[in-house]
Amino acid sequence: MDDKNISQAVISRLPRYLRYLGELKDSNIERISSQELSELMNVTASQIRQDFNNFGGFGQQGYGYKVNYLYDEIAKILGLNKTHHLIIVGAGNLGQALANYMNFERRGFHFTGIFDSNEKLYGKKIRDMYVQPMEELEHFVKENDIDIAVLTIPKGAAVKIAEQLVSYGVKAYWNFAHIDLKVPKDIVVENVHLSDSLMRLTYTITRNESEKEN
Amino acid sequence: MDDKNISQAVISRLPRYLRYLGELKDSNIERISSQELSELMNVTASQIRQDFNNFGGFGQQGYGYKVNYLYDEIAKILGLNKTHHLIIVGAGNLGQALANYMNFERRGFHFTGIFDSNEKLYGKKIRDMYVQPMEELEHFVKENDIDIAVLTIPKGAAVKIAEQLVSYGVKAYWNFAHIDLKVPKDIVVENVHLSDSLMRLTYTITRNESEKEN
Repeated sequence: MDDKNISQAVISRLPRYLRYLGELKDSNIERISSQELSELMNVTASQIRQDFNNFGGFGQQGYGYKVNYLYDEIAKILGLNKTHHLIIVGAGNLGQALANYMNFERRGFHFTGIFDSNEKLYGKKIRDMYVQPMEELEHFVKENDIDIAVLTIPKGAAVKIAEQLVSYGVKAYWNFAHIDLKVPKDIVVENVHLSDSLMRLTYTITRNESEKEN
Repeated sequence: MDDKNISQAVISRLPRYLRYLGELKDSNIERISSQELSELMNVTASQIRQDFNNFGGFGQQGYGYKVNYLYDEIAKILGLNKTHHLIIVGAGNLGQALANYMNFERRGFHFTGIFDSNEKLYGKKIRDMYVQPMEELEHFVKENDIDIAVLTIPKGAAVKIAEQLVSYGVKAYWNFAHIDLKVPKDIVVENVHLSDSLMRLTYTITRNESEKEN
């Protein structure tokens, strides 16, 4: 699979395909045409075919896609056929909420530990795990083959903690700290900057209002 | 300002400019050249100039940008010069975390109410507000001029609640429910699908690993 030139826009659409295919699977639907999928997802059938052609197609023309097969193939492209071991660093409001709210296991993520620098939290149990002190990070990461760290710490702490985690061998970061992490080239960062998202919303509200006025 | 043709990519970069300009403001820096801003933000100076040219420029060539002015202009484009009244619908883990974690006021958002259908939560106080029953939504939304609803409810409930809120006059939705809302054309939805973001991370992990193997 040569996917070096696949655009970020195509990649961003794959999780949505997976979500719809998962629902079709749950409803025991075995086959779907690109036309049906197009109506369900409210995108054009030609967009769907173009997206899938980036990965060699998946389906037979006029015969539709096999739902299970398509689901598995997209899951594979998204790396969900592999086991990922994940820790949450920062057991404040957001870290606790993600621990409780995200159904990590459903997608094959093993959530194995949660850490904080606030000793008042050490006794606290979150999803059957005690909050551990930051001093345990190095040992824990190396013992448990952790490949993803979820950073839900304030931005002041995030840079230093990310540097430490990189030196312990963690290669991927799901970063909620509102800062751009500076990391080596082989390290992967996916930012979730919630206030940026809220500003995109107010941008669109404002644009719609000014269009109405004109 | 004619911004109908401004690409989504440019819009998505504006909050990041605002973040860096806010930090410069906090450090009492009054002027910055596009070259300095470029180094700080790790994007090319030509990219910065192109982005800003979408909005008529902002700065004098060779003289640099006035930080305060630029901050205010970008904030205005993002609609942050107006007051937005916001409620959170769904007081579970994620709703509570957002209530406690987001610094809504800093960006001019008035967070005025939090709602849930679970009566066990009604007595609970979150950020000085009692969780209110869903039955209060209609009255509250109309009385308090609410323009943004944050949806942190399960996807099964989100479609119906969004429909109700639309009928009460709420025009914008910050949607954390893992579903595509079907809303009229003049309604604005910004989705935060956290598990989609996590999948983009595993996609990149997998791609990097397969590149290394080749």
